[in-house]
Formats: sequence, C-alpha cells, structure tokens
Amino acid sequence: MSGNTIGTLFSVTTFGESHGPALGAIVDGCPPGLELSEQDLQPDLEARRTGTSRHTSQRMEPDRVRILSGTFEGRTTGTAIGLVIDNVDQRSRDYEKIKDRFRPGHADYAYQQKYGLRDYRGGGRSAARITVATVAAGAIARKYLRERLALEVAGFLSQLGPHALACVDLASARGNPFFCADPAKLPLLEEYLWQVRKEGDSIGARVTVIARNVPPGLGEPMFGRLDADIAFAMMGINAAKAVEIGDGVAVAAQRGSEHRDELLPEGFASNHSGGTLGGISSGQDLIVHVSFKPTSSIPLPGRTVDIDGSPAEISTTGRHDPCVGLRAVPIVEAMLLLVLMDQYLRNRAQCGDVQSRTPVITRSR
Amino acid sequence: MSGNTIGTLFSVTTFGESHGPALGAIVDGCPPGLELSEQDLQPDLEARRTGTSRHTSQRMEPDRVRILSGTFEGRTTGTAIGLVIDNVDQRSRDYEKIKDRFRPGHADYAYQQKYGLRDYRGGGRSAARITVATVAAGAIARKYLRERLALEVAGFLSQLGPHALACVDLASARGNPFFCADPAKLPLLEEYLWQVRKEGDSIGARVTVIARNVPPGLGEPMFGRLDADIAFAMMGINAAKAVEIGDGVAVAAQRGSEHRDELLPEGFASNHSGGTLGGISSGQDLIVHVSFKPTSSIPLPGRTVDIDGSPAEISTTGRHDPCVGLRAVPIVEAMLLLVLMDQYLRNRAQCGDVQSRTPVITRSR
Amino acid sequence: MSGNTIGTLFSVTTFGESHGPALGAIVDGCPPGLELSEQDLQPDLEARRTGTSRHTSQRMEPDRVRILSGTFEGRTTGTAIGLVIDNVDQRSRDYEKIKDRFRPGHADYAYQQKYGLRDYRGGGRSAARITVATVAAGAIARKYLRERLALEVAGFLSQLGPHALACVDLASARGNPFFCADPAKLPLLEEYLWQVRKEGDSIGARVTVIARNVPPGLGEPMFGRLDADIAFAMMGINAAKAVEIGDGVAVAAQRGSEHRDELLPEGFASNHSGGTLGGISSGQDLIVHVSFKPTSSIPLPGRTVDIDGSPAEISTTGRHDPCVGLRAVPIVEAMLLLVLMDQYLRNRAQCGDVQSRTPVITRSR
Amino acid sequence: MSGNTIGTLFSVTTFGESHGPALGAIVDGCPPGLELSEQDLQPDLEARRTGTSRHTSQRMEPDRVRILSGTFEGRTTGTAIGLVIDNVDQRSRDYEKIKDRFRPGHADYAYQQKYGLRDYRGGGRSAARITVATVAAGAIARKYLRERLALEVAGFLSQLGPHALACVDLASARGNPFFCADPAKLPLLEEYLWQVRKEGDSIGARVTVIARNVPPGLGEPMFGRLDADIAFAMMGINAAKAVEIGDGVAVAAQRGSEHRDELLPEGFASNHSGGTLGGISSGQDLIVHVSFKPTSSIPLPGRTVDIDGSPAEISTTGRHDPCVGLRAVPIVEAMLLLVLMDQYLRNRAQCGDVQSRTPVITRSR
Repeated sequence: MSGNTIGTLFSVTTFGESHGPALGAIVDGCPPGLELSEQDLQPDLEARRTGTSRHTSQRMEPDRVRILSGTFEGRTTGTAIGLVIDNVDQRSRDYEKIKDRFRPGHADYAYQQKYGLRDYRGGGRSAARITVATVAAGAIARKYLRERLALEVAGFLSQLGPHALACVDLASARGNPFFCADPAKLPLLEEYLWQVRKEGDSIGARVTVIARNVPPGLGEPMFGRLDADIAFAMMGINAAKAVEIGDGVAVAAQRGSEHRDELLPEGFASNHSGGTLGGISSGQDLIVHVSFKPTSSIPLPGRTVDIDGSPAEISTTGRHDPCVGLRAVPIVEAMLLLVLMDQYLRNRAQCGDVQSRTPVITRSR
Repeated sequence: MSGNTIGTLFSVTTFGESHGPALGAIVDGCPPGLELSEQDLQPDLEARRTGTSRHTSQRMEPDRVRILSGTFEGRTTGTAIGLVIDNVDQRSRDYEKIKDRFRPGHADYAYQQKYGLRDYRGGGRSAARITVATVAAGAIARKYLRERLALEVAGFLSQLGPHALACVDLASARGNPFFCADPAKLPLLEEYLWQVRKEGDSIGARVTVIARNVPPGLGEPMFGRLDADIAFAMMGINAAKAVEIGDGVAVAAQRGSEHRDELLPEGFASNHSGGTLGGISSGQDLIVHVSFKPTSSIPLPGRTVDIDGSPAEISTTGRHDPCVGLRAVPIVEAMLLLVLMDQYLRNRAQCGDVQSRTPVITRSR
Repeated sequence: MSGNTIGTLFSVTTFGESHGPALGAIVDGCPPGLELSEQDLQPDLEARRTGTSRHTSQRMEPDRVRILSGTFEGRTTGTAIGLVIDNVDQRSRDYEKIKDRFRPGHADYAYQQKYGLRDYRGGGRSAARITVATVAAGAIARKYLRERLALEVAGFLSQLGPHALACVDLASARGNPFFCADPAKLPLLEEYLWQVRKEGDSIGARVTVIARNVPPGLGEPMFGRLDADIAFAMMGINAAKAVEIGDGVAVAAQRGSEHRDELLPEGFASNHSGGTLGGISSGQDLIVHVSFKPTSSIPLPGRTVDIDGSPAEISTTGRHDPCVGLRAVPIVEAMLLLVLMDQYLRNRAQCGDVQSRTPVITRSR
Repeated sequence: MSGNTIGTLFSVTTFGESHGPALGAIVDGCPPGLELSEQDLQPDLEARRTGTSRHTSQRMEPDRVRILSGTFEGRTTGTAIGLVIDNVDQRSRDYEKIKDRFRPGHADYAYQQKYGLRDYRGGGRSAARITVATVAAGAIARKYLRERLALEVAGFLSQLGPHALACVDLASARGNPFFCADPAKLPLLEEYLWQVRKEGDSIGARVTVIARNVPPGLGEPMFGRLDADIAFAMMGINAAKAVEIGDGVAVAAQRGSEHRDELLPEGFASNHSGGTLGGISSGQDLIVHVSFKPTSSIPLPGRTVDIDGSPAEISTTGRHDPCVGLRAVPIVEAMLLLVLMDQYLRNRAQCGDVQSRTPVITRSR
C-alpha cells in the first residue's frame, strides 16, 4: 500500500498540493446506509480553516467539499466516496524567491534529495494544507461512530510553548482560535502568540485528544495494536514529533504499583494507560497527546544552502501559521477517528460474534 | 494485512506464545545474494535473552534460532525466510492461580473482552517473549543495511525511573545488563533496580536508539512518512507508551528559530529534528526515543475483578522482569532496522534512478 | 487494502459511478521526473470512449481528464496524481422503470443483497463506465514503461461470438471500432453485430493483449506471481469470466514435450507459456486472453423478480453496448500496464542490484 | 504485502522449499473460539500427498502438520496460527546433473534471471511441494465455513489430456487417485496416464471446484471482486494457465439472452454465471475451472541452454508427477476456501448489519 493511503478496511487515499487546482480523497470501505451529505463534513473543515483569526495563516480558502461518488439519495452506498476541495487562494509568487534554497527545518531539502525535483509553491505536498482532505474523510468516520456507538472524539490545545493548558471545559475548545479548553487562559495565549509572531518567530505546541465510548476489544496483538495505529496516524501529521498514549513519557518514571489501573466492578480506578491494554482498547477513555514542532517558515533569517549546495541566507515571508499546533486539533481528531473506524470494522470482521462472560467495566475517564 | 505482519516490501510475519512449543517469523522480500546463517542472528537474540543477570526474568531460554527456508549455500535466495525458535523453559503452573482474574495494567482483561477466551499461560500472545521472533528478523535487516550502506543502529537505556542516563559511550551499552551507555552510573542502577524488586514493585524506562549513515530520501509524504512507520513499529512493542523523534515532546516549548537545523555546506548545524524532514530522512542521524511503562505483573497486591466481574485481589509471583525497558533495547533496535530496511527498498523502487543536483550534506549527529 | 485500490507500489484507487457528477483516480507511487500532461492520457481515453460508432452505447461523453496533482512544470513529482473526469451525458430517467427489479445476469441483485440499497442509475458503481478512470491511470504506466523500457502493450479482439479473429496486423486494431487486427474480417463483424443488436440481443467476446519487451524477472513465487496479478486485474474488469496466459485452456490437452518452450542461445523456440515461467516473466512476449460475457442489459424480455421477491418481467432499453468486449480492449491494456508497472517497481526494490551470469534470451514472440 | 502472503483479513503467509528442512505457514486473522487440532488439517494434507499411487511422484512424505501457536485448550485464540510440516524424504542428488541447465517450461531460467542464483534442489521455492502449507491453511478455513455457514467446497478432475470428465458423483472424487467424479472413466484414465508416463512424457489437466451455500454478498466492486480474488488465488498455483468462472471461455460465444440466469422466486433458472454477479456472490453455487499445463520435468530429452547460455540438452529423471493437475484438486479447494474465508470476513466488516428487503433466492446449482 503506497504512502497516500491509510487504513486497512476503512481506507483513505488523498491527493493534492498547496498550490494545485484542488485536493481530495477517496474514502473506501464505508458501511452502506449511512446518511451523508456535504453538510456533515463542513463543520470539521471549518474548524481547521485558515484566515479565521489573526493567529493563523491569512490565506482565505472557503474549503467547500464536494462529494463526487459513493452516496445515493442521501445515503452511503458502500462504494468508494470521492471528495474534492478546490484551492482558490493560492499566491505562488510568494515562493519565487525561495525556490532555489531550502528552509531549515522544512521538508524542502529532503524532497529535493528524494525526488530530484520539488513543487516549491507553498511546500507542495509537504504543506499543512494537504490535511484538509484527511479532515473531510475523518468527518465521515465521526458520523458513523457517533450514530452507531455514541463514540465521541474531541481534542484541545494542551500546551503552547511554555504554557501548559488544562482541560477545564472540553466543549469550549472549538469555540476559540486556540482550541483552548481553559477559557481563562485565552488572554494570555493571545498575548503570547502575538508577541512570538511580532518577533518573526514561531512556537511549538501539544495537542490532546480524547475518545469516549470506545468499545473494548479494538486493536490486535503485535503489529495491529490500536496504539501502534494511532502512533502511525499521528506521526503522519505535518510537524508531529512525539506521540503519547495515556501518561506517555511520564511512564518511564512510574512504578508498577502506581501505573496499573485497578479494576473494580464499578469501573477502572484510574486511567494511566490512556485506554489501551496490550494494544487493545479497554473501554476506558482513549487519551492521546501529540507534540508539534514550531513552524519552520519564519521571517527571522537563518543560514542554509541553495540547490547547488552553496551557502545562502533565508527569510520566509508570505502567509504562515505562527503555530501549526493550533489548527492541528481538528486534524488530530480526524486521524483518531479514521483509526477507530478502521479498527472497529476489523474487530467486527474477526470477532463479530464473540461473547465474553466478563461484564464490561468502564468508569473513570 | 493482518496484525501479525509489519512492512510493505521487507515484511515480517510472526507467530508464537509465551508458553507454546515455539515462536517464529517469516521474513519476506529479502534481497537475494546476502550471506546469511544462524550465526548472524544469534548475537541480537543473545542481547534480549532473559536469565543472564539478576535484573531480568529468570526464565532460561537458549533462544537458538533455526532458518528453515530462504537460503541456499549460505546466501539468501530472495524467497521467504522461515525462522523458528523453540520454547524450552515454560512453567505454566505459575499462572494457574491468576487464570481467572485480570492483572491490572496487563492485557488480560482486554484479550478476554475481545476474544472471549485467552491463553493465560505467561500472557500468551501478549507476552514480551513474542518479540524474540522480531529480533531475529531485525538481525537480517541489520546485516543487509550494514553491508550495503554501512548503516548502523544502536540503542541504550536513557532513563530508568527517576534516573536520566546520558550517552557517554554508545558502544558500551551492549556490555551490561542495563544497556546503559554511561558506565559510571551502573552501580547506581544496580542498587536502584534491586531495591524496586525487593519492594515487590516494578519501574518504567526510556530507551533511545540512533541510526547512523541513513541515506537521505527514505520515507514518503503523508501516510508513508518515515517517522510514522517508526512510531507504528515502536508503539507495537509491548509496554511502549510514547514515541519521540529527535527533540520529541520538548519541541512543544521550542521556538522556530531554535528548533530548525540550519544547513551549511559542511553539514547540518544541529539535530533537533532527529533526522527527518517532512517525513523523509535528511541524512542526519536518526534519533528515536521510546518510553516503556513498568511491568504490570508484580507481587504487590492490587484490586481487580475476576472473570465473572466480581471483586478480587491479585498478586503476581513467578518470573518477571522488574523493568521491561531494559531488554527492550534490542527490540527497539530490531524495529528500527525493519522500518529502515522496508523504506530503503520502497525508496529504491520509486526513486531508484533519481539524481539530485544538490550535494548530500550530513554532518552533525 | 480495500476494494477500490489495485497495486502494491504503483497503486491506483478509483471512485465514481455511471451517473454521478464525476469519476476519478489517485495514482500513487509514480516515479518522479516523468514528463506528463493530460495530452498523454487522452488517446487511451479516446479509444474506450462510447458514441464513436454505431456499435457502442450512444452515450456521448467527452472523457476529458484533468490532472489535479502530482505534476509540476510538466513532470511527475513522485507524489499522488489526482485524476478527474466529469460525467456530462447522464440520462437517469432511462432507469426509472427498472429501479425496482433486477436485470438477470447483472450486478443489480448482488448489490441489493450485499448493501441493502443500490444506485440503480446506469448501474452505479457496477457500470462499465467506471473503467474510464482505470484507463487514464494505465496511460501513465504506459508512458513510463515505453520511455524507460521500450515496453509496449497492445490488444485486439480475438473472438466475437462465433467468429475467431487472428492477429494479422496488430497496429491496425486501434483504427476500427471492433479493435480487430484482421482488417479483412471487418465487414463480417459489422454485419454480425448489427444483426445481434437488431434482434434485441447482445454477444460475448474475447480479447487478447500482448506485451513486448518485458524484462525477465518480473513477478515473485507464490502469491506474487506475475500471472496471478494479471489474472486478478483482468477478472476485475466488468463482464470478464475467464483469463488465460499463453495457450490458456488448451494446455489441459497438451503433452509436456509439446508445451515446453525450448531454450536456444538465439532465443526461445516457441511461446506456449505466454511469457511467464514459475510466475516470473521470461522475457518472451507476454500473452493474455480475457473472455467477456454478453451484456446483460438487453431489450429482449426476460423473467426476474422485483425488490420484494415477486415475479416480474424485464426488458432493458436505454443506451448500452451490444458487446462489452469491444471497448474492453483499452481496458485490458490498461490493466496489464498497471500490473507490469507495479511488478517492475517491486522487482527493482528487491532485485535492483542483481546480476545474473546467464545471458538474456528472448526471441520468439 | 509481499509475495508470500494471501488475504487481507484471513491472511496466510507461507515459507519453505522442496528440499529444505521444513515448510510452513502463518495463518492470521482466524476468528477465536473455533475448535481446532492437527486432526482437522490432516485429511486435506492426505489428499494432496504424493506416493499414494503410481500416478504421482514416488516421494514419500508423511506430511504431518504441527500447530505451533494460536490455539489454547483446543480452540483458536484469535492470534496467529503457526503451522510447520517437516520434509523427510528429500533426495537432492537427483538434481546435481541439472543444476547448471534450465528445464524448458520450468521456473529454472526465470529464477536465475531474477535472483541471480537459485536453489535447484527439487525446484526450491518453485516446487509443487510448497503448496502443502497452503492446503493446511485452507483446512482451517474449511472448518470455519462448514461449521458456521454449512459452506462446502469440493473439486474434481474435469479434463485429463484429451479426456473431458463429467461430474457424475462429486463425493467420489476424493476416493481415487485421479480425483475423478465419473467412476466409470477410471480404467480409461489409468491406462492413459500410464501410457504417457511410459513414453517419458507428461500431460495437462483441468480441475473444477464448486462451493455450495455461499452466502450472497461476498466480494466488492472493482478490485475487490470475488472473481478477481479467485482468479488471483488460482493463478498463483504452480502450473495454472487459465482460470474460468462459470461458463468461462464459452461466454465469448454466448448471446445475452442465453447467458443471463433468470431470477424466479423459487431460485435462479440456470447458472451460467458460476455464482457471481458484478463480482459479488449471488448465492448460487460458485463454479471455478483451472487449467494446468503438463509437468515440465520429463525424461524425454529437450534442447536448452546452460547457466552460461551455451546450448545443452536436458532430460529430467528423478521423482515427478506425470500430471500435476491431479494433485492440484485439494490445492484448488484450499485456495477457494482461503478466498471465501477472507471475503466472508471482509463482508462482515463492512456490511455486517445490512438488511435487504429482498428475499434470498438460490436454487439451481
């Protein structure tokens, strides 16, 4: 399976570049009979859209998705769903002056060495823009999982540079440009990010996503582990440099007696594991964290080489997010939804008729 | 592709349980003509073997691998390589008393809910023992990559509970039971881990692995990213809860001007990225960190439920590692080798005849 | 990998229905640096287009393809190539009267039982129309294989109903609506097919496709056999009911001394095998035959059941090909091209540096 | 997925060579809870075993399979099932004299050109012997499908050289060395095949396999078609040169009014289609034919080249089947079982909760 496809049964293949005519996806394996229209996909696209606040790129893309196949009379037919989103606000001339030199920290150099040529306009296929198709696909998974399992996925910004951010009100995260679930911190973030941008710099961030009502049993031993699929999906997002499940990197300092989530008839006593045991969902809340590096396209000048290897200086102007982590929240949600949808179908295939004598226990988030 | 296979072109499928008669793997897609015998696989198996110090499980397995196919007159033929390792020191009676209750933090409960039944002897397929087949497979990749590319992969223990551990002498890591690359710290670790065990407890750890002489160009955009494949592979190891590339979780607090690795004609000025740019290897050292949770099988009693959901207490005796992270080092190495081997072949397939006009720059580790 | 994707490395995923707004494909894994524009794809699309003679459906589709991604300044970049072809001449009202009953021999009934609902307009996803995207993708493979290997793929109609057709002039096949390589037979075919249509009936056909300059070594043992991939691809074409390699069904009556193609230093003495030995290309011409059943949508009334299982009669009017086999020729070519492209890349991955001491022998077509 | 694996969800990966120490398979994705022991696999292995009559190779292999993993207390656990079958009757010296020359019609030459070296002992990985592992895996699928769906798969020899053979008594096919379902023809076949062998020659054959009680709905449009998977599986068998579904190559001469199987409330009126419509099972009997070329290893001398390309003569003695088609019957059955099992699980994944208002109709075999 080539590199633009994710998923074994609910599989999503995407195409498109930052400054090409359009982006899109083919969503294969969707169960038939799901009510689906463009309106169902638009809210997630809206959430990741640029140009909606001064804290994102000022590129103005309407991000209207069209469903080209796979539905009939308002329902999925079980055949491939074709999705297309047009690009309308490309401004390729911004990239003329950096077309022959590589932004440090950017994919520029690696693409050149791999392919021998590259579409330098807006980063081509390496741009964050390409995630728009993934988000549209994720919205289909969201609808199915919500309707059939009452499964809900929601993310929030858990760190912006030096500022750790709590989950005070998860539902509020989509209501502000920072995807911040701690409303009291908004003025601080506004001020902080504006300062970073004024300095011609960018900043990293960490996103946390939570899935509720995940049935126990999703995932398989070895290379089919639910957490492995999640790690794969998350590390496939632009700028991601770390993926953690549950307590994540903190587990290295934990004792076994502290980490293990005791089972009580009324539910798990804690949730250090983040919802997986042995690579299989336990029925607890699934908790995932992804750390994003700071944007590499910044005005502050840096040293680099040009296409012939000669020393050069670079300063990137144009329209860029000062923190890619912000708009990563809906992308992280989409990725988790795609993984859960695929693993749900895989589990139904193999274990669809299993009955366990052990009651399901789930309490503790 | 089902859950016991990893890799698209160099693909490894494994089988086996902790207390079954044998474990094994089929390694498919190996290039022909590689000199290969059992002796080439044994050192890596020896490195992850139990019973070699008081800090691991006392199960005594010789871990002798047999190559059942895929070689002829000492060379690989290009056909599937069958590997088998016998189990000889099972002691299943240890598990009789916990067969009807679930160890908190262990895969027990999740397996029961998914499959409706489980092989409770030694954890069955969820045991760390099953990684023996992966390590054998990884040794094949190691030999190929070393001979053809001079590519070297080596790991070490970078944290044990509260103790962070530097990489003072990477080559020394394989010479001690802690895989510690900071020899001066060994007495401290000995003392610390012995104390944990005496208390009937276990402890987490963090492993770091480094690949040198990785050619630039491995990996693909989107879902074929080298880092995504690495994250998938690492999170597929028992007890792994976090995967980081380069600066990992620290990037969330970094500025763009700080994180970006400047390119100079004589090499990269730093290596915050950990060797990938846009999901593609840059030619710098590849640096990966994996955090492991503490062993869940511990003598300290804990609360749980039994197979019918009734409250129960559990205390696990028998033979267990007090820190699964130690012996994870050769497993982490094997996983990285498998990913690199697969991505090397994938890149040769698509870009085998690419020539870039830009010179390769690599300095800075 | 779900059912709308073909190929491991050069992989093609398609979407679209007969009466939806558009059809398309994502072509993944194409090597970078190939000169490519819409003009390169149009000839193959033109070859399979309807409405160009009285012997095909009268639906008038321009079949103009747009490349939405994956190229830059006229060359492939190595990233996913998005292709879209708009539908413009749907006439869905033709299907109103059969929407609640199943055409015998058609996918109607099977789709209903599998999905519980179906897009009855023009057959939805089961229509021959959906192959337009495959043909566009195949044209990319054709260009690469022609330029890099001088590999050529060409097909012709080898049987129409009772009439077997020889390959007198392969190059002439694309010059007539029957894809007939025996020009002297054209008047007969014209007369015959017109008669079938006048009787309200349809007729089966057989297509033969030949690939020249296939390098030896493509394909792998067991489930990676070149012939297996070819069989899979061909049987995936609408209405295909048999796939033969070389002498095909005739081999059941052959003796070993007759079938084996002797090797002489100047080349193979014959080509009964059709270009593969042990599932691997021998360097001889690759010869494949595909038999297509007659169109099931015909005016002649037949017995069927309706959506509730009650007896009904059906007669299909509207616009249909009286022989789907004719226009199958470019589709069969496209499928073979896709398989060869994929296997070429797979072989380069595993065996890219193999040198055999045995000279390549190829004569005999 | 590399070339030694078949199946997306119920996936089988095999290894082993004709003269290596052992052959085997890993069967992944089997549903848990299936009663399974070696005794369940042995009958199918017995059916394909050599040395049981004078009409097969005289190699005496007991073909005892061992299950190394994936079962516990007599039931499948849902984890990977490891199977191993030892080779005990290799006689490699037979091959010394042909190790440097290529048998015409054999994989010898293609392997040499692909891999640059080959295991010439018994054909290595290209030997018919390697299908033993596939047959063992198929027996697992057989047990599941029989117990859960009452689905039965049975094959028979439908042609031996010039002799077409009817299906008079399908159940009798396994009772004779020819897998002949027309007992009256046995003396003729005995005589005929003995004559062929005496002449130092071999002969082709055709096998037919039928699956009963296949539920409607297995298979998917495009590249997931049930018939495509079947064609892939069958053409992956050694010596297969043609695969036909239903009326197969005869459809090229059929009229639409003749081929279409009319639907009546009490069942289909005929079965020309062979059980699939639009690539999806219709619920009718599935009928598949596979044509096998004659064995290429024969005593009759033939012209060839040696490893350096110089002209040579070859005559193959040793132990070979005079007709590989005979013992292909259990292999063809196994392949069909594997495909049906995989497609059954895939369908359950996507359409597990579909309800069609149309009653299932199935009569007519």
